This record gives sequence, structure tokens and C-alpha cells, in this order.
Amino acid sequence: MTSNGHGGDVYAAARDLRRGVHHLLDFSASINPLGPSPAALRAIADAAPLLQHYPDPTCWDVRQALANHWQRPAEEFLVGNGSTELIHLLPEALHIQHLLVVGPTFSEYAAAMRRSGGRVSLVMGDRTEAYRPPLEQVVAAISETSRAVARRRPIDAVLLCNPNSPTGYASSAEAVMRVARRVTRRGGWCIVDETFAEYCADASILSHMLPARTIVLRSFTKFYGLPGLRVGYAVANKPTIRRMGAHQPPWSVNMLAQRAAVAALGDGRHASRSLRFMDRERTRLRKALTRLPGCILFPSAANFLLMELPAGWKATGTAAALRRKGILIRDCSQVPGLNAQSVRFAVRTRGENDRLLHALARVLRAGGS
Amino acid sequence: MTSNGHGGDVYAAARDLRRGVHHLLDFSASINPLGPSPAALRAIADAAPLLQHYPDPTCWDVRQALANHWQRPAEEFLVGNGSTELIHLLPEALHIQHLLVVGPTFSEYAAAMRRSGGRVSLVMGDRTEAYRPPLEQVVAAISETSRAVARRRPIDAVLLCNPNSPTGYASSAEAVMRVARRVTRRGGWCIVDETFAEYCADASILSHMLPARTIVLRSFTKFYGLPGLRVGYAVANKPTIRRMGAHQPPWSVNMLAQRAAVAALGDGRHASRSLRFMDRERTRLRKALTRLPGCILFPSAANFLLMELPAGWKATGTAAALRRKGILIRDCSQVPGLNAQSVRFAVRTRGENDRLLHALARVLRAGGS
Repeated sequence: MTSNGHGGDVYAAARDLRRGVHHLLDFSASINPLGPSPAALRAIADAAPLLQHYPDPTCWDVRQALANHWQRPAEEFLVGNGSTELIHLLPEALHIQHLLVVGPTFSEYAAAMRRSGGRVSLVMGDRTEAYRPPLEQVVAAISETSRAVARRRPIDAVLLCNPNSPTGYASSAEAVMRVARRVTRRGGWCIVDETFAEYCADASILSHMLPARTIVLRSFTKFYGLPGLRVGYAVANKPTIRRMGAHQPPWSVNMLAQRAAVAALGDGRHASRSLRFMDRERTRLRKALTRLPGCILFPSAANFLLMELPAGWKATGTAAALRRKGILIRDCSQVPGLNAQSVRFAVRTRGENDRLLHALARVLRAGGS
Repeated sequence: MTSNGHGGDVYAAARDLRRGVHHLLDFSASINPLGPSPAALRAIADAAPLLQHYPDPTCWDVRQALANHWQRPAEEFLVGNGSTELIHLLPEALHIQHLLVVGPTFSEYAAAMRRSGGRVSLVMGDRTEAYRPPLEQVVAAISETSRAVARRRPIDAVLLCNPNSPTGYASSAEAVMRVARRVTRRGGWCIVDETFAEYCADASILSHMLPARTIVLRSFTKFYGLPGLRVGYAVANKPTIRRMGAHQPPWSVNMLAQRAAVAALGDGRHASRSLRFMDRERTRLRKALTRLPGCILFPSAANFLLMELPAGWKATGTAAALRRKGILIRDCSQVPGLNAQSVRFAVRTRGENDRLLHALARVLRAGGS
């Protein structure tokens, strides 16, 4: 029920600032700035008569649409109430006791493990390498563990977010596949969160043959622009999907989400427009931010940018100053592995990004946070 | 992801029968036949711009509306992705090891306990007493357990559905309060599922002072007619709500559900109309069903009727025969404690109920199932 320090809590900000949600500019959640597909919005409006029925507990139509989209059997997909539900059911469903998370990254994986009483270890990408996920360390950690099986709770699963949030770094599909093969060959689970992978299709392992015990998570929240509706999915082999499905309460995915997801997948035109727009606008915003004195930008394959504020500035104070102006950004100073100057911005529409640039320049000119 | 033999799976029936969902008559799920409040439908349509934001993780507005509706502090409410999500998080959140279920009842409680590795015991209402929940046996079971604490996994929680599904029996609020006091005084949890209690407000314990360790579950699925959207809630004291909330993944409740719930709670006119309609139509349907030779009806305080088919008839065959005609009813023969002739019908609109009566009379005239 709490936001756990994530971005995207426009409602709390609206209450604090006594403004309507539509008077806030939210750069803290990274959602497609072009919004959801118009076809998805039409599907939601048309589905009102279905509210009187329980949702399809099997998410049949969504899984058929995914099967068609990815050219994989429908039985290899599990649809969830956002990928967050799936992240939270993984530890129990797969009996994961000790998860290795490749950081710096999103806090929800660790939260899910803690909730189930499991252990979390971290390997960290290095700042000097743009926080490149140290995949070689993952393989080493797993090998070491399998040599010392006697030890209490060896690492039995690895989680990699690719492209990674909040750093934006995309590892190549080949590199991820290599890790997946090594981890799973040693009996571990390999979980790849591809929540932002629509923005860099080449980095996705979904067009590859997934090793057994490999799970890919995807979402309709970011690229498909439907965070308010909650729909995500997992891709894995049939036995794994069955195991996960057995741990999901029935009717998790509401019917409007199911209809919207099918329509969104079918709208290739909105998808290409969204990709073209992001390529262009991310480059423009990045360049403009680089011009702010002392700001350091990291390369990003997703729809957000990780930035370090100039020396002497703190992410927390800067985020608070912008928040008072009704502009929400992601303070990443509490993400283990990032420093106190780290902030993340979503790339939004051109006009909105200009407002951010303007406000940020003013805050930085005004002096120390 | 599976329907676990519940009613309400119109989508599977539509696929099997190769008909549109709107060409089926669903008496298997018990949903307000007048549909959701028009204000809720308007709220959903108006909330489309909010789909681009994550939902409010605290469900602030819903909890304010509930606080106002029930005259209790907002901190005593936890909103869930349907009450099903809340049922499934209870065993872990409250460390329940051994649940006593008062049957015959809904299968989800036992499913949730099994999923968490817990034990389930049952006390059964007796057919000759219209399946009245044997609350005296509950108290005895709890007392016995607390005397023999040394025994492995004593009963540490009791679950009572009131009014009960699928029997329709409503225990009085006073009787339920007595059980709640006895159970909780002995350190157990008392969970009262009031999913259908809008239909008999007097039987609800929500206008009473709840003992600590007592949890009431409610839903917007049945009376408020919004099963497709997923929204339910728990009422308990603040520490219990906090414990439960810590076990809920963030953003569980989609934003359209939050807006619709607030609007539905505010529409007192639709609520009174729905109650008046149900009182009248349940009586009429009941009378008409009683006229079918050999059928036995049980008293119901909710929006459905439990019936026994005439001797020689089986619920399974009869439900299948009606299903072929596009009419779905609830086969209750697999509910522990009910017999092979037990079926449940939702009370729908007058015209729809007449179609059920007509079809059922024809099936019963046609000879043995």
C-alpha cells in the first residue's frame, strides 16, 4: 500500500501541493510521452459492458495476442496485475531463497525477496563504466556458490533489468543469453526484467530460444503508456509459467486492462511513432541537459536519462525544489550504488522537456540545494 | 490464473459455445442485476486521462470515502485488487498456520491457506438447519485448541462468510460479535467475509466496535456490480491494517477501480433502488422456483438462491444442460458439505429470471440429468 520511495506518486504530490494531478509535470515515472494507443483507449471505452462480469481468469485473449506478437505458444505467457505482481510472486512460486540482483537498480526486487523472507545480494556496476552491469561477476558469484553448496542458502536466482532502470544501460542480448545459460546450467533461475526493452528491441532475449529456468518480465506500463490500469506479463517455458500461475490469486487482471493490452499490441503504428519520437527527443533533451554547467549524463537505451547534478548539489534538495514548482523528478540518491547527486528524468514531450530544462536551469542558477 | 471451479467464467463458456459473452445469461456469479451505479460508469470514462499515471498506491480517496461511509478512521481500511487479493495475503501477513473455516462455503479461503502451506479445518452447518453456521462449534474448537496448545499447529484463525455463500444464510451481527470476541480473546484472528452484507445491513458487524484481531472483508464486486474492475477492502484496527498493507505489492488497485469505487459509494440512490429491487425479485424468483416439482429452496439474505434439484437429478448434469442453452448456473455439488443436487442461482432482472425458470422447467421436464 505504500509507494516505497518509487517515483510516480503524483497523487501524494497533488495532495501536498494542493494542486490537481493534471497541474503537475511528472518526470519521475517513465511513461511513453505520446500516451497509450488510441485503439487501447477505444477498447477501454467499449469494454464498459464487461464490467458486470468477472475478468477472464486465464487472460486468454491477451495470451493469444502475445503468442502472435512474439511467435511463441500462448502457454509460455502469464499475465499479471502489472509486472509488480509477478515480481512479488516469483520468490514463493520458484522457492527462491537467495537472489543476486545486478545493481544499481529498481528497489522492488529486493522488497519482494524481503517480503518472502529471502536473502538478497548485490553486484554493482561501476560509475566509471556508466554502471555497465558486471555480468562477469554474476557468473563468478554463481560458480562460487555452486562450489560451496554446503554454505547456507547459496545464490539460486539472478535478476537483471535490461535495459536497466535507473541507469539506462542496455546489455546486449548475446551477453544476457550467456549469463542465462551459465546461471540456469548451474540450477539457478535467471530473471530478466525487460520492462523498458521496447525501446531497444535488439537487446531483448525474447527473439532467442530461452533456456529453461529463464523468465522474462514485460509490462504495458512504460512503452504502452498504461500504468494506471496494471498489466504486465512473464515469458518462460510452460512448466515455469504453470508454477507461477498456481501462485497467482484468481482474477488478478481486470477486464479493461485485458482489452486495452490486446488493442495496444495490435497498434503497430502508434508503436513505431512512439519509438521514432523517443529516439529524436531523448537525443535533444540529453544535449540540452549536457549544456547545463557541471551536469553529467549517462547513455540511455530507454525513455529516461540518468544524470548527475553538478558538484555540491544534492539530488534530494533539487528534487524538492522542483517539486515545489510542480515538477516531479526521480531522486536516485537512495538507490544503492548511485551517489547523492543522481537524478533520473523521464523523456516527455518537447514542450514539457523544455519546461523541465528551464526550471532546472533556474534552480541550479539560484545556488546550493 | 485458473478459475478454480468458481462461477462467473463467462469467457470460457463463450469460447466453448462459440457465442459472444453478451449472448450468455450468467446466473453463476451473483452480481447486482441493475449493474453498477451510473455515477461509477461516468467516473471510469472521466478517469481516462489518469491512465498515464501509476495509480495512487495509498488509495487515499477510496479510504477517505470509506471512512466517511462507515464513520471510522481512514487508517482502518486497506483497499485491494478485489477482496480475493486480500484473502490471499492474510495467511502470510498474519502468520496464520491453521484456519478454521465455517462451511459449507466459498473455496477461496482454503485455496489461499493451501498456497501459503497452512492447514485448514472445517465445521459444517447442517442441511436440516438450512446450513446455519454452527458458531457454537467454532467457539468449542477454539477453546479445545487453546487447552491443548502443545498440539502441532493449533487453530489460530476462524473464517466466517456472512451472509454465507453459497447458502445465503445470515447469522445475526450479535452472534458474529460473540464469536469474534471469544476467538480473539484466545489470541486467534477472526475474519468475517461480508462480501454480500450490503443486502442485509443488520447482519454486518461494521457498525459495532470491532475487537482487536478481527478483520472484515468487503467488495465492490457484488452489490456495486463491478467484478470486472477488481476492488475490495478490509476493515480492521490500525496495526492489523498496517501489517496487511506491508504484504501487498504496490499499485495493486488500478486507478479506474479507485475512481469507480468512490463514485459508487457516493450514489445512495442507486444503492436503495438496488436493495428494493432485490427484495422484491428474490421473493418472486424464490416462489416461482418452489413451484417446480421437487425443488427445495433455502432461505437467502443475499442476491442468490441455493436450491436442491429434485431427487434423481444431479447439479452437474443440469448445469451442463443449461450451459448448452447459454445459461450459466453454479454447480455446488463439489462444495464440501453440500450434496450432489445443490445449485446456486443469482437473482437477475425479471425478464432474465423468467428465461431461467422457463429453461429449467424444460430441462426438468425432459427427464433425468
